[in-house]
Order: sequence, then C-alpha cells, then structure tokens
Amino acid sequence: MQDSYSLKDIALFLDAELWGDGCAQITGLATLKSAKAGDLAFLSNSKYASQLQHCHAEAVILEADQAQQFAGNRLVVDNAYLSYAKISSWFDNAPEPSQTIHPSATIDPTASLGEAVSVGANVVIEAGVQIGSGSTIKANSVIGARSLLGEDCSIESNVSIYHDVRIGHRAVVHSGSVIGADGFGFAPDPQGGWHKISQVGAVVIGDDVEIGACSTIDRGAIDDTIIGNAVIIDNHVQIAHNAVVGDNTAMAAYAAVAGSATLGKNCVLAGGAHVVGHVTLCDNVQLMAHTLVTKDISQSGSYASSVTPLMTTPQWRKHSVRFGQLNDMALRLKKLENTEKN
Amino acid sequence: MQDSYSLKDIALFLDAELWGDGCAQITGLATLKSAKAGDLAFLSNSKYASQLQHCHAEAVILEADQAQQFAGNRLVVDNAYLSYAKISSWFDNAPEPSQTIHPSATIDPTASLGEAVSVGANVVIEAGVQIGSGSTIKANSVIGARSLLGEDCSIESNVSIYHDVRIGHRAVVHSGSVIGADGFGFAPDPQGGWHKISQVGAVVIGDDVEIGACSTIDRGAIDDTIIGNAVIIDNHVQIAHNAVVGDNTAMAAYAAVAGSATLGKNCVLAGGAHVVGHVTLCDNVQLMAHTLVTKDISQSGSYASSVTPLMTTPQWRKHSVRFGQLNDMALRLKKLENTEKN
Amino acid sequence: MQDSYSLKDIALFLDAELWGDGCAQITGLATLKSAKAGDLAFLSNSKYASQLQHCHAEAVILEADQAQQFAGNRLVVDNAYLSYAKISSWFDNAPEPSQTIHPSATIDPTASLGEAVSVGANVVIEAGVQIGSGSTIKANSVIGARSLLGEDCSIESNVSIYHDVRIGHRAVVHSGSVIGADGFGFAPDPQGGWHKISQVGAVVIGDDVEIGACSTIDRGAIDDTIIGNAVIIDNHVQIAHNAVVGDNTAMAAYAAVAGSATLGKNCVLAGGAHVVGHVTLCDNVQLMAHTLVTKDISQSGSYASSVTPLMTTPQWRKHSVRFGQLNDMALRLKKLENTEKN
Repeated sequence: MQDSYSLKDIALFLDAELWGDGCAQITGLATLKSAKAGDLAFLSNSKYASQLQHCHAEAVILEADQAQQFAGNRLVVDNAYLSYAKISSWFDNAPEPSQTIHPSATIDPTASLGEAVSVGANVVIEAGVQIGSGSTIKANSVIGARSLLGEDCSIESNVSIYHDVRIGHRAVVHSGSVIGADGFGFAPDPQGGWHKISQVGAVVIGDDVEIGACSTIDRGAIDDTIIGNAVIIDNHVQIAHNAVVGDNTAMAAYAAVAGSATLGKNCVLAGGAHVVGHVTLCDNVQLMAHTLVTKDISQSGSYASSVTPLMTTPQWRKHSVRFGQLNDMALRLKKLENTEKN
Repeated sequence: MQDSYSLKDIALFLDAELWGDGCAQITGLATLKSAKAGDLAFLSNSKYASQLQHCHAEAVILEADQAQQFAGNRLVVDNAYLSYAKISSWFDNAPEPSQTIHPSATIDPTASLGEAVSVGANVVIEAGVQIGSGSTIKANSVIGARSLLGEDCSIESNVSIYHDVRIGHRAVVHSGSVIGADGFGFAPDPQGGWHKISQVGAVVIGDDVEIGACSTIDRGAIDDTIIGNAVIIDNHVQIAHNAVVGDNTAMAAYAAVAGSATLGKNCVLAGGAHVVGHVTLCDNVQLMAHTLVTKDISQSGSYASSVTPLMTTPQWRKHSVRFGQLNDMALRLKKLENTEKN
Repeated sequence: MQDSYSLKDIALFLDAELWGDGCAQITGLATLKSAKAGDLAFLSNSKYASQLQHCHAEAVILEADQAQQFAGNRLVVDNAYLSYAKISSWFDNAPEPSQTIHPSATIDPTASLGEAVSVGANVVIEAGVQIGSGSTIKANSVIGARSLLGEDCSIESNVSIYHDVRIGHRAVVHSGSVIGADGFGFAPDPQGGWHKISQVGAVVIGDDVEIGACSTIDRGAIDDTIIGNAVIIDNHVQIAHNAVVGDNTAMAAYAAVAGSATLGKNCVLAGGAHVVGHVTLCDNVQLMAHTLVTKDISQSGSYASSVTPLMTTPQWRKHSVRFGQLNDMALRLKKLENTEKN
C-alpha cells in the first residue's frame, strides 16, 4: 500500500470515465458521510444519493445516472459496487507477508514449500505437506500431514487444517477455523453408548474460496467433503461430512449443511439457514435467514421457513400460544364452513 | 487467593451487616444446597429460601427480608447477588499471572509493553503493538500489527487479534475468539463469482468488555466496527463488519449482529437472537431467544419472533402443517364473517 | 494402518459369517456406489439395496436378509452399520501419534505425563497437569494448570483447556474447542454496567466423550459443569456453566444447553436445538432441529417447536404475516362459533 494514488491511475485501473482532476491524490477510502479531502467514496445504493450534496470526498465512484448529483471529482463506471471492490485492495492496510520462514516454525523435512512462501511464528507443517508459491501461513496455525495448499493462499493465525486436506489457489482461511476435523459419525451400540466411525475421507476445496473465522468443514466419512470454486463462507459456518457445496455459493454466519447434503451452484444461504442431511438443493437457491431445509429443492428461487414477524413479547406470547391451537382452529373452521353450506 | 478469609473482613469489604461470628474462617464459595463448614453461600432468588433451613454453610449472604430464615452466620446486604459477585473474585482459583515474558514468545522489537505484563508461551506480538500495564496474554495467542490493548486486560490462550484493533482497559477475551478478521464483503461479479472487498476498517472496543470463547468480531469494511464500554459477550457470538454495540449491552451465546447494524445501550440479546444488517435498535431493548430482528426498533422493551411453544413432535407436525394454510384460513374466516353479516 | 487386510481377518474381528474368498485383500473402505476392487463397502440402509447389483466392491458387509442380493464376497453380520463402524478404525489414515515430546513444547516441571504420551510442537502444559498413558496432545494446544486427562485421549491441535478441568479416558477433543472458559455470569450493577462473577467451579467430563471442533464447555460458577460418559458433541456446540449432560447423550452442531440446565441420559439434540437455563430434561428425549426448550420435560420422547414447513419466500411472507393475526383469528373464530350456537 502506497501513501497515495493519483485519481488518474485509479480511473485507468477501473476503466472509469474521469470527471475532474486526474492529479487529485487519493489517500484512503471513506463512506460518503465520513469522507474528507483525500478520500475516495462510492455510491452504489441510490437511497444514499442525497448524501452526495454534502459529501467532502476528494472523489466519488458512481454510475452515469447519478453522476450529475455530485460536483467534485467523479469516476463514472458501469458498476460502482464492483469498482469499489476492485480498488479497495489498493488501500488494504494489512501487514505485507514476510516471504520468510520464521525460525520458530516446525516444518517437517518432507514438506515442500513453493517460492515466496511466508511462514509465521510457531506454525506447524507436518510431513508431506505441499504449499504453493506465494502462500502465507500465519502464526500458530497447523497444517496436517499430506495436506496440499495451492498458490497465493492466505491462512490466518490459529487455523487448524487436519491431514490430507486439499485446498486450491488463492484460498483465504480466517483465524479459528478448522478444516478436516472428524465428521460426526457414530453407530449406536445396542449395548449402550456409541461406536465411533473413523472418518477416512478428506476435504477438497476449489480455487478462490474464502472461509471466515471459527468455521468448520469436516472431513468425509468415506468419500470426501467437497467445496467448489469461488465459494464464500462467513464466520461460525458448519459444513458436515460429505457435504458438497457448489461453485460460487455464499454462506452467511451460522449457515450450515448437514452430512451428505448437496448445495448447488450460486446458492445464497442467509444467516443461520440450515440444510439437513442427505438433502439436495439445485443451483440458484436462496435461503432466508433461519430457514431449515428438510427436503430437496429442485427449482431455483428463494425459500423460507420458521421466521414470524417481530413483535413485542406480550403480543408474541398471545400469538405463539395460538400456534398450539392451529390444528384445532383449522378443524373448527372447517366445521363452521360445513354448517354454513347446509 | 488466600486459603481463607475471616467473615469480618468479608463483611467489611461488602459493607454488609454481620450477624454472627466475625472470626469464622471462609475457605470457599458454595450453593446453599452443597455448602459445608467453611463455605460462604448466598440467597438471591427467594424461591430457594426454603434451602436455608438445612443449609450447612459457614455463612450466608442474604437480604434483610430473608435474614430471619437462617440461624447461622449472616451477611445482610442490600443486593445479595451483587455482593456475591463482588466477593467471588476473592475465591477465584485461576492461576496468577506470571508478570513475566515467556522466552518462547515472539515479540516484535517495535512493540511496547507496559509494566507487569504477562506474556505466555508461544505468544506472538507483532510490530507496533502496545500493551497496557498489568495485562496478560496467555499461551499461543496472537496480537496483530499495531493493535492496542489497554491496562489490566486478560487475553486467554489461542486468541487471534488481527492488526489495528484497539481494545480498552480491563478487557477479558476467552480462548478461540477472533477479533478483527475480515468482514464478509464481496461484490458479485457479473461474469460469475465474487470480488473480495478489502476490509480496511478496524475494530474499536471500549473498557470493561468481556468476550466469551469462540466469538468473532469482524473489522469494518471502511469505517470501524465499534463495541462500547461494559459490553458483555458470551460464546459463539458474531459481530459483523461495521456493527455498533452500545454500552452495557449483553449478548448471550450465538447472538449476532449483522453488518452495519446498531444496538443501543443496555440491550440484552438472549441466545441465538439475530439482528439483520443495517437495522438500528434503540437503548434498552431485550430480544428473546432465537428472535430475528428484520427492522428498526425505536421503542425500548422486550421483543420476540419465531418461537412457538414446545410440544411433542407428532403434535408439532400437525400444527406446523397448518402454518402453511394460515393465509387460506384467514381468507376463509373472513368469508364466513361476511356471510354471517348478510 | 496396514496396506491391506485379508477378508478372513476382518470376518474374524467382526464375528461375521464369511461368504466368499477369505484371502481377498481389502485395501480401503468405499460406498457401494464408488467401490472398486480392493474396497470394502457396507449396506445398512435398505433403500440403497438396489446398488448391490452393480457394486464393484471386493466385499460387502450386510445383514442376512440382504445377503442374497450381492454376488461377490460378503460379510454377513447382525448389525451392518455397527460392524462398519468397528472395522472403520482399521482404515483410519490419520498420522500415528509420535509417542514423543516435541522439543518446542512447554511443559511445567510439576506436570506428570504417563507412558507413551505424545506431545506436539508448541503445546503448553501448565503446572500440576496430569496426563494419562497413551494420550496425544497435538500442536499448539494448551492444557491449563492442574487439569487432568485420562488415558488414551486425543487432543487435536489448537485446543484450549483451562485450569482444573478433569477429563476421563479415551476423550477426543477437536481443534478450536475450548473447555473451562468462564461461564457467562455477571450481576447487573444498579449504578450501571455489570459486575463479573468469578467462575470458581470446574468442568468434569466422563470417559469416552468426543467433542467436535469449535465447541465450548464453560466452567461452573460455583459447582462444576458435568458431562457424563459416552457423550458425543458435534461442532459449534455450547454447554454453559453448571449444565449437566447425561451419559450417551448426543448433541449435533449448534446444539446448546444454557446455564444450570440438565439433560438426561440417551438424549439426542438435533442441530440448533437449545435448552434454556435451569430446565431439566429426563432421559431419552429427542429434540428436533432448531427446537427451543423453555420448560422441563419429564416424559421421554421426541419434542419440537418453532420450525414451520419450507416454502417459497412469497408464500412464506403471506403465512408469516398471518401469524401476527393468530390471536385475533382465534377470537373471531370463537365468536362465529358462538353466533352459530345461538
């Protein structure tokens, strides 16, 4: 990250139409509301357009139909949100990878590391691991035996990757996440208790996958658990053994897929949406927050269950009690209708 | 922690009225039910008052209106629960901080540590970090570059704090928690897939905040994620990018605030209560367990959604099916009413 | 793990009736569908019986009533799923424990380790800890002061165990889990804010317990939090202070027990099922996914709440709105019935 960039260079990178002073120096990103001199802001949601009038940004990224509403420097683009996403990396303030191996790291001699790999303090890399060029493993993370990591991956601190996990290129895995722990597989013993089923499958993750903090992806029982390309996973997500998650699917916080369930491509699971085991969702399914999917979905679209409107607790108590009378109410309604007809 | 304390000293500390033997030696805390000689118990919930009769505690903390019901040593106070809370720290059995730097810790030479700071084994403290006097960082935790920690903080083992996080005084952060990971921000690319938005904001946390185990507080996208003073956070909690949590607010396990949502002061989120993105809650709002808040709340009070009464699964199936007929039932009811009127 | 096992040896171990070639060499496990030469498959769910016809497994584990449907080598057993569970450990491909102490581990001189204990890199074992023979502590895990671990336990990487935790024999604890963090106990201070209650209880865990990844078991406030024998716990589970979980109980992902709640023996909590504080469940209770238990359950059986059928989002919106009219509908229905009677 440089201290500043000229607006001209930014326009060039974004393929944006530049209205104003190309020599303006941009030192950071800001929201329309908080922007001051030197800041680059953006407008992607037209409901904030009124903020343009009093916006003190050095420049604003916006689309043609809003461009007249701002008087200062403008970068006019086709898709303001995407352009903001693209330029945001220029202002990333995370420390640069060291491209060195910290002396406290424990790296098995049979592990193979590509060029320009960064390995932080106390990292443990077990036997047979392969790490692609340009990847970073941050402090106190553990990569289990024979696991493979592609190029330009970023494994944050305190991540646990078990043995035989295969991860593609450009993965980001945030702290506290666990990939390849045993699936939850136990056979009930008729004598009481449970008999653990060794989870001999692995986890296979595609390219361009991001995994948030404290998320878990369990290894398969026999076959592998599979995550496609460009899957994005938020915090506290659970992906159980032998689940399959299709390309480009997004899972928000606490979203979960139970064992052997399959999510199609381009699905979006809102927060706390869960899919039970052995169920299959086709491509392009959206699940609303807190939805529980208990059966296959074979038609793309938006689905929901369970959530009722927010109300005050006394109101809610009244309605909630009635839920326990619903079947009775339905039968009584039917009876009245029948009386009516006669 | 001493082996024992005289009841007189405890009474003095709690500003309690002492009924009985001030020389009695207290060696530990116990519940009314399990207390034996040497134990200090307390009564804060009057439904347990009947246990006083057979209680073998060395002494009991209680309020004036219950004081006659116990025959042994008593500490009569205004607020028994608060008094118990205050005295509990005298019996804390956690190991004392070492006030030393473990030789295996990796501390960047540009980091600055106050007096009497304890740093455990394999702790990693990156460049520019500042840690206030009396703070403890336990084994295998990582503090990212330029992060600031106030005085008398306690960071338990295996905690991950990313770069540029600012935490106030007396914070407690339990194991497995992650502060400052990237928010879940991606722009959909019209060509397919997602374009990551660099999360250039930080996390700012006030004084006297406690964060449970395996909880996550993401860094802001542009502005900061903000946690007020005296906020208490349980395990598995999620606070997304640019959320704002007001002073004294309590969040139980799995409670969550999505991106750019704001919680007021003195709010209480019960377990699994979630607030969707860009929504604002005023001060003094209580959310019942599993509630999903989908719109602003501008009046203080208790709110709920979604939860219906517990019933046996066969009963529940009957009623649940009827939920899918609710709209139809409502229309039919209306029709019957109209027939009635004519 | 050997490269292969003879079918005869496997039959002997499983006490199975061997139909076919006892000299057949088994090199791995597979599903009926994916099995090829050398693979051992199993049939436990009769709905997959049709896959037997085209199954290329070297041998199949199945029960007598299905045995005629496969032409190849068969192991005929009483309980195919249990037999598969038992044999699965022969094919476990996890790296063998080293039975050595890694030089980077930090082990307090007062800690006591049994025979053949494996301690990974950067493990921290504090004062007074006792670890039973044959146990494994993997990289970067921390065992707090005075905690006890039985024999043949397996603590995966990045696990945090606080002080004074007592764990029985043969426990498995997966990465990212936290045992013994402070319970969520705070007394509201009438002056504002919260007064932390020191959590002076511990955690006591029986034998044969498995704990998934990123799960949390808090220490007791005064008495201990107690987990029975053969309890199985999935990922992201929360067990709050002073909860009691009975023997053989299973808790799926995100299942939770709040403070001082008690689960009986042989209970099964499906994903996201939560039990509120101070509530008691008897033995043999099953909770459906997402159920919230708000009162005692004294009769064994299956219980549910809250979940309504999956539907498209437009349908759901219609019905969900009606939920907020339920009480009104019930009163209007009653009124119509009364009119009818007159």
